[in-house]
Amino acid sequence: MSKKNKKSEEGLTVKKEENFSEWYQQLIVKSELADYTAVSGCIVFRPTAWGIWEKIRDEVDKKIKKMGIKNVYFPMFIPESLLKKEQEHVQGFAPEVAWVTQTGNKKLNERLAVRPTSEAIMYNSFSKWIRSWRDLPLKYNQWSNVVRWEFKYPIPFFRTREFVFNEGHTVFATKKQAEKEAMPIINMYKEILEKYMAIPGFIGKKTDKEKFAGAEYTLTIETCLPNGKAIQGPDFHHDGQNFSRAYDIKFKDEKGEERYVWQNTWAISTRMLGIMFALHSDNKGLILPPKIAPNKIVIIPIGFEKDKKIISKAKGLFKELTTYQPILDDRTETTPGYKFNEWELKGIPLRIEIGPKDLAKREVVIIRRDSGEKIAVKIKNLKKEINKELEGMQNNLFEKADKLLQGTLDKSETLKEAIKKIKEKKIVLVPLKNSAEVEEILKEKTGGAKTLNRPLKQPQIKGKKCIISGEPADYWVYVGKSY
Amino acid sequence: MSKKNKKSEEGLTVKKEENFSEWYQQLIVKSELADYTAVSGCIVFRPTAWGIWEKIRDEVDKKIKKMGIKNVYFPMFIPESLLKKEQEHVQGFAPEVAWVTQTGNKKLNERLAVRPTSEAIMYNSFSKWIRSWRDLPLKYNQWSNVVRWEFKYPIPFFRTREFVFNEGHTVFATKKQAEKEAMPIINMYKEILEKYMAIPGFIGKKTDKEKFAGAEYTLTIETCLPNGKAIQGPDFHHDGQNFSRAYDIKFKDEKGEERYVWQNTWAISTRMLGIMFALHSDNKGLILPPKIAPNKIVIIPIGFEKDKKIISKAKGLFKELTTYQPILDDRTETTPGYKFNEWELKGIPLRIEIGPKDLAKREVVIIRRDSGEKIAVKIKNLKKEINKELEGMQNNLFEKADKLLQGTLDKSETLKEAIKKIKEKKIVLVPLKNSAEVEEILKEKTGGAKTLNRPLKQPQIKGKKCIISGEPADYWVYVGKSY
Repeated sequence: MSKKNKKSEEGLTVKKEENFSEWYQQLIVKSELADYTAVSGCIVFRPTAWGIWEKIRDEVDKKIKKMGIKNVYFPMFIPESLLKKEQEHVQGFAPEVAWVTQTGNKKLNERLAVRPTSEAIMYNSFSKWIRSWRDLPLKYNQWSNVVRWEFKYPIPFFRTREFVFNEGHTVFATKKQAEKEAMPIINMYKEILEKYMAIPGFIGKKTDKEKFAGAEYTLTIETCLPNGKAIQGPDFHHDGQNFSRAYDIKFKDEKGEERYVWQNTWAISTRMLGIMFALHSDNKGLILPPKIAPNKIVIIPIGFEKDKKIISKAKGLFKELTTYQPILDDRTETTPGYKFNEWELKGIPLRIEIGPKDLAKREVVIIRRDSGEKIAVKIKNLKKEINKELEGMQNNLFEKADKLLQGTLDKSETLKEAIKKIKEKKIVLVPLKNSAEVEEILKEKTGGAKTLNRPLKQPQIKGKKCIISGEPADYWVYVGKSY
Repeated sequence: MSKKNKKSEEGLTVKKEENFSEWYQQLIVKSELADYTAVSGCIVFRPTAWGIWEKIRDEVDKKIKKMGIKNVYFPMFIPESLLKKEQEHVQGFAPEVAWVTQTGNKKLNERLAVRPTSEAIMYNSFSKWIRSWRDLPLKYNQWSNVVRWEFKYPIPFFRTREFVFNEGHTVFATKKQAEKEAMPIINMYKEILEKYMAIPGFIGKKTDKEKFAGAEYTLTIETCLPNGKAIQGPDFHHDGQNFSRAYDIKFKDEKGEERYVWQNTWAISTRMLGIMFALHSDNKGLILPPKIAPNKIVIIPIGFEKDKKIISKAKGLFKELTTYQPILDDRTETTPGYKFNEWELKGIPLRIEIGPKDLAKREVVIIRRDSGEKIAVKIKNLKKEINKELEGMQNNLFEKADKLLQGTLDKSETLKEAIKKIKEKKIVLVPLKNSAEVEEILKEKTGGAKTLNRPLKQPQIKGKKCIISGEPADYWVYVGKSY
């Protein structure tokens, strides 16, 4: 059998800077992160992608458990009558609901929604369980698969009809207590994004038009992709008493008076994986932040067929480095060059090459996936150097992404200038009126830009005019085209 | 406000030995393990139950990852045409499938099954991914929610229309390699049952009539409940080439010849929680094996309103004992007696009481949930004593359950005697023919007993006659009534 050694046809055939969408879709499939399935709009999460999601789940889980939040699991079906109890909520989700209408050969008396989110089914139980102020706060979370049958073109991770998320549902006696949870939650998500996924972002409040269906207000972390498109990350919703009134969740306070509870919900979804893959990867394939990469190292022995010492040393290192979940590629039917390409495509952060010359010098060569930098390292210093390079790579990825984001953010006080900047793929902070109509016009005039969020610390708004209506503006808000 | 101090109406009002079913259903709801929902046959897993399931998931996950198995996530929908590819499989599941037929306002062209299990959707992808012997073995696992719309009376955990399980799906080049996985997997499950859940069981092979729809054979762990009813635990299926032929999963072997792969599947489900709760608990409420209990200790300060030293010591212990996830019950609106009842109902393994007299002697009192035993302990020896009691309780629960199981197992060579023993709530090992018809007659004559599994090490079968047909028997098999 002849060895495979050409730059493989399995590599990416388009460039990120030339055709981002096609590059992304090739990346996802060829790096074996996901695959399409027989169900339109639904993907398989292959081991690397799912391993990363499990890591994110575990880290979020640790943090929220420390905040006193407990995990539960509710049914994935919601009877239609229950879903319909909160009007804004059902209007937001009904167009995308997948309905179970038959079981076995029987038609159901009432259609069951496959959960697009779990407010309706959870709050029906909350109204049974909560009786007194002593039952509050009630702080629950669930990791669940949900279905939103969007008719827009599906994109792996970014927009799939089934996806997985955490849904925090917390219940408080007062509005003040409920709102006190906002910043700790959204900051917890920001830390996960920054520290593990190397994703920068900016926190702000959605406009009324763009808030969650049923929320009083929504906080989000927004970020941007290399193609200049904005994209929304994790969110936090303060629901006020909207759901407690609809689902009749009341408690007796310390004076014995009956009151409706105050609620929040918050989520991070598998969409974040798409953002992370798209943000860091290059034309050779996947690049993963080391902290999140399931396998941090691949060891490639070179010329080992002729020199048994090499394979034995490689195996020794493989055992020594188990904490990094290394891969030892000792295949004999492929050339080293083929292996380099394959593991670059699959995004292993560090490659360790070990050949006869290296071994003679008691060295190995480390190659960093992000920079391509080659570093000769004495074997006795290997672990120290690995830690240094992994940390360096983690920081480098965040800094690059942050530079991209900072370079994309801009500011403007006129529609004309805003349109120009949006065309240049900027995300622009503009003064705007709080009005759904204004946002519709904005979208038309800019060829599709939407409001993203408005900074919690607002620049001076007094005296500024809405770039659409010319009337006094209500706030500064980021505007951009979304992916 | 007057203190609550009567034996609460919230306790169990029926006895386990008098009305097992009613006792179990009260236990589940009153101990706040689960609750019924607006969806018939589907339950909420409340924090204690879900925390236990997460623990089981994590332990199984660690073990299977060491065996080289990787987690993935496939869509929960399966197009009808795909589900229908393996005949035995679809016939087994079709009567219980929940069908999505509409999304938003549109009727789907093809119905989508909500997965009852994932063979059909997974193997369609496997047939794309597997090309050569180098792609094998492929060893994947998924933690997923599945739906089987049974029309039998639903029982929380034991029989719910949605439940959660792991589904291992492994693929091999040869039958021998596939079958080599059987004992490590089933033994791994047995260890989880014994070591963590304190559930004994017996391993064996299902009869052809009772095997998994689509499998060549099925291994199971069976156990029994305090009411003498048999119940099936985790299982392992060797599927031979049934699915690879139906879903066209082929590979080129080292000689370049095309062959169908060999497959296994295996699972442990949330049903095990029901078995564990039913097995160990008593008329005061829940009893949990300490290794699986989310909170292992409750600290109850007594007379602390009058003596500040007590509450300060209780708080000190609460901090010292964090590894046991303690609960500190310092409510002032309930009496100690009320608290004792409540935490007994909720199954906290150890109660630590700390009152003025104890404190004067530098002692606390530990009360074991399983035995009710009270142990005065010097505070300086507390951790050592806690560990000893938790371990003692874990062992005691297993031993009691094992004694129950061993006392339930019996043996018989005649139908008449077998019927008598089954009436006495025994599980009886009998010689039987491998015949669906024979099993139907057995069921009729015994008022509903089914074959459970047949021991892998069979007693001498030569010369033994089938207790139903009188013809030479094919094997010894356990027979009993199932829950």
